[in-house]
Amino acid sequence: MLKNIRIVLIETSHSGNIGSAARAMKTMGLTDLVLVAPKQGVDDQAIALAAGAEDVVKSAVVVENFLQAVADCSLVIGTSARLRHLQNSLIEPRECGTKTVAHAMNGKVAIVFGRERIGLTNEELLKCHYHVTIPANPNYASLNLAMAVQLISYEIRMAYLAATAEVTSTPANVDIYPSMQELEYFYHHTEQLYQSLGFIQNQGVMQKLRRLYGRAELEKTELNILLGMLSAVEKNKNLHNDNS
Amino acid sequence: MLKNIRIVLIETSHSGNIGSAARAMKTMGLTDLVLVAPKQGVDDQAIALAAGAEDVVKSAVVVENFLQAVADCSLVIGTSARLRHLQNSLIEPRECGTKTVAHAMNGKVAIVFGRERIGLTNEELLKCHYHVTIPANPNYASLNLAMAVQLISYEIRMAYLAATAEVTSTPANVDIYPSMQELEYFYHHTEQLYQSLGFIQNQGVMQKLRRLYGRAELEKTELNILLGMLSAVEKNKNLHNDNS
Repeated sequence: MLKNIRIVLIETSHSGNIGSAARAMKTMGLTDLVLVAPKQGVDDQAIALAAGAEDVVKSAVVVENFLQAVADCSLVIGTSARLRHLQNSLIEPRECGTKTVAHAMNGKVAIVFGRERIGLTNEELLKCHYHVTIPANPNYASLNLAMAVQLISYEIRMAYLAATAEVTSTPANVDIYPSMQELEYFYHHTEQLYQSLGFIQNQGVMQKLRRLYGRAELEKTELNILLGMLSAVEKNKNLHNDNS
Repeated sequence: MLKNIRIVLIETSHSGNIGSAARAMKTMGLTDLVLVAPKQGVDDQAIALAAGAEDVVKSAVVVENFLQAVADCSLVIGTSARLRHLQNSLIEPRECGTKTVAHAMNGKVAIVFGRERIGLTNEELLKCHYHVTIPANPNYASLNLAMAVQLISYEIRMAYLAATAEVTSTPANVDIYPSMQELEYFYHHTEQLYQSLGFIQNQGVMQKLRRLYGRAELEKTELNILLGMLSAVEKNKNLHNDNS
């Protein structure tokens, strides 16, 4: 189940942070590391700081952008400061741990960490289902990147140990969640259609819809219904255009 | 109350670890740091790695031995591997957090971290009331010293926040959810429209939509968007009917 949990680091500045993050992951049993366009790739310093987690660093996959890193994941949690416009999707590390472990029984989960100084962009944040905030000291909340990876990985391990301690043998419900790629197709299609109907005129609507469906952790059968509704509207619209 | 909680580092080898530990402490609101016979004292590297927690490093007290570091404390918790002879006093970080915070209301608490490679001596362990063990990956349990300080400090902060939240509970955010009447209007309207478009032909679709939006705990602003989308589709449809 821990194999279904991925740590994504976006555009890290220092390779040492990659190594330290890998070490932090491995101490908590996580091994799937994806690097998005690191400024310094895996080098000697990354390997030195990884210590005994050299295997995690060396098997890290490097991709070009956010969507490539999470394309096969059905739950994406971004790390973030306590931003007002995200307040409804904000969770703390403990809840992040339980949600991640519960979801990892059925699908892949990505926890995405932003750049050392500026974190995730607003566009990236909007692609996340939840936003995890570490309840740090408001007067000094500057956690080192690898420290943040350590804390989040720790809460995942705690939730994992609690889940495996319960002697439950419920069969895993495989494949109930759509992939990020399928979801993005839906959002894109929705935006196009309702723009053409004149309803969507700015970014706000899509942001709210993403937040709503992200919070709901949309399932495949539900997504298919929503896609069917889009097609029905589209068919009607085309009919209209042909007649006019 | 957090002022009553002390972090003690015993005979650290690297001054960088002192700085990183101080940074980890301060992000969680802890400031009382005592160093027992460090091999490298507070130097430039310690200060560099402390980042914005320079004040914690600079005010750290240096003493010669374990007992001097904890002399004024009434609860002493040592960090340790899961040693068999300690099993009756072993606790995990979460319990360490709650015990520490409960005790700190009335007296001073010390959390003692051992040497980077060999930890605490048996003699030192026996002087601790409890022994905290991080439930790390048994195949690779090698947490960096500052990472361990970060995790323990985090659990102390979580316990502290929980304890203070009980005193000052936040007022509920009233009036963000739609009434049942408003929701039923939306469902009814959706059903009528998509029936007329030929998409809804049985009960199944509406049941799934109700489950989805129920689970999401739809908010008023979101409901308004969904209603706006229905109106946009309806307007387009009527336009079509008028033309045909």
